[in-house]
Amino acid sequence: MKRIKCELMYDGSRFSGYQSQPRDRTVQQEIEKALWKIHKKTSVKTHASGRTDAGVHAMGQVLHFDTPITMPAERWARALNGELPVDISVKQTEEVPETFHSRYSSVGKEYRYRIYRTPYRDPFRTVYAHHYPYPLEVERMKDAAKYMLGEHDFTSFCSTKTDKENKVRTVHDISFIEQGDDLEIRFTGNGFLYNMVRIMAGTLIKAGNGRLEPADVARILAARDRNQAPQTAPAEGLYLWKVHYHSTFSCHPVPGDLHF
Amino acid sequence: MKRIKCELMYDGSRFSGYQSQPRDRTVQQEIEKALWKIHKKTSVKTHASGRTDAGVHAMGQVLHFDTPITMPAERWARALNGELPVDISVKQTEEVPETFHSRYSSVGKEYRYRIYRTPYRDPFRTVYAHHYPYPLEVERMKDAAKYMLGEHDFTSFCSTKTDKENKVRTVHDISFIEQGDDLEIRFTGNGFLYNMVRIMAGTLIKAGNGRLEPADVARILAARDRNQAPQTAPAEGLYLWKVHYHSTFSCHPVPGDLHF
Repeated sequence: MKRIKCELMYDGSRFSGYQSQPRDRTVQQEIEKALWKIHKKTSVKTHASGRTDAGVHAMGQVLHFDTPITMPAERWARALNGELPVDISVKQTEEVPETFHSRYSSVGKEYRYRIYRTPYRDPFRTVYAHHYPYPLEVERMKDAAKYMLGEHDFTSFCSTKTDKENKVRTVHDISFIEQGDDLEIRFTGNGFLYNMVRIMAGTLIKAGNGRLEPADVARILAARDRNQAPQTAPAEGLYLWKVHYHSTFSCHPVPGDLHF
Repeated sequence: MKRIKCELMYDGSRFSGYQSQPRDRTVQQEIEKALWKIHKKTSVKTHASGRTDAGVHAMGQVLHFDTPITMPAERWARALNGELPVDISVKQTEEVPETFHSRYSSVGKEYRYRIYRTPYRDPFRTVYAHHYPYPLEVERMKDAAKYMLGEHDFTSFCSTKTDKENKVRTVHDISFIEQGDDLEIRFTGNGFLYNMVRIMAGTLIKAGNGRLEPADVARILAARDRNQAPQTAPAEGLYLWKVHYHSTFSCHPVPGDLHF
């Protein structure tokens, strides 16, 4: 058996999230259907770095699977793309050691949250960015973000629907990229809880529009209570951008930033 | 009655084109439905600069309508956007003299055709650009485009389904913007026939991939026969970018190039 690591992108707008569910269309289901065809109607189980919710996009989701088929590892990308629907695309495949696991070997992740602020909704971005046509003071958002950096118990920034016991995570960096009416917030950390990036984004927006003081973030974190944090920001602005692994798990140098 | 000129954008992917048709969802139908609501269930007829086909997008379609409602002309944009679906957005509205007609007063148009050339399909661009993962020599495309410039009988570059008698049009400019894997072809002219931009784009692609000599364009034009020209390029790459009018019809200075 060979273990194949697979980096993929998907437009989340027509999926009920990543993870397989009866009845609904999901990314995992489409990938396992493609693998089932390639393996002559034998089921192949995939393991992803984590789930994404309905409407959330991915530029660099990672999964792995084990296969008895022998072909050059990079050819898997073409084989899968030949079977996948138009809203999923495999960017790269490579063979990895058996000790690699897309979820447990991950040492960090990057998520990006996209906001656009034109007075009217852009029909081309309805499902690709969060439309927020009100004033936002980015300096206040940056001040609020500083309180989120470092190691914290993020219970207040986690959906109560989670099944995770340990809510301690480390946020390495939160940066803001402004370009005209566009505002992108980039979050990197060692891991993120269920809805964590979207609750952080909702909190930063509320700091930006003046309805929350940046220093309130410290109080919200300390409360360890989801009800203390603002609303979850909409799914359409969120992109799972990159999953990081120790370089021992890759024959490739760490790739530079992706342009989009 | 006041005449209102309206500039709008739409994502053409979920429309069966611009013009109203029984049963199918069209842009015109959605706009007239919005106007019907604003006019307390009275029908209002709209006139557009021209139709766009199923799947074709618009960044600057123009239409006009006459209304007995008195409100500051620029407020119409907000009123319409409040009633329109998410895939249509009104960018600007202004009052124009009764002598203005969105179609007959037009002095020219710009269309853009977008191609992207990554090895694999990009799930975020499936319906927003034409995926062409084969080699294209842009210099050959530029050479072929030169034969299309100026005044010609464009019968060979017009769908036989047209109802237009006069097939003489003037193409003012065809420019190529390359950025990494992206190639955008910008066409400006005094007017374009049914499918004309898409047949020109299909012809330029065939010159770029070597299956047509640039000089063949002269022969194709002279033949005045649709069968002599290559295939119509797919709708998803095409954007009606701008409709031009004499400045006497606008209180605004001619706007600069739009970034997208």
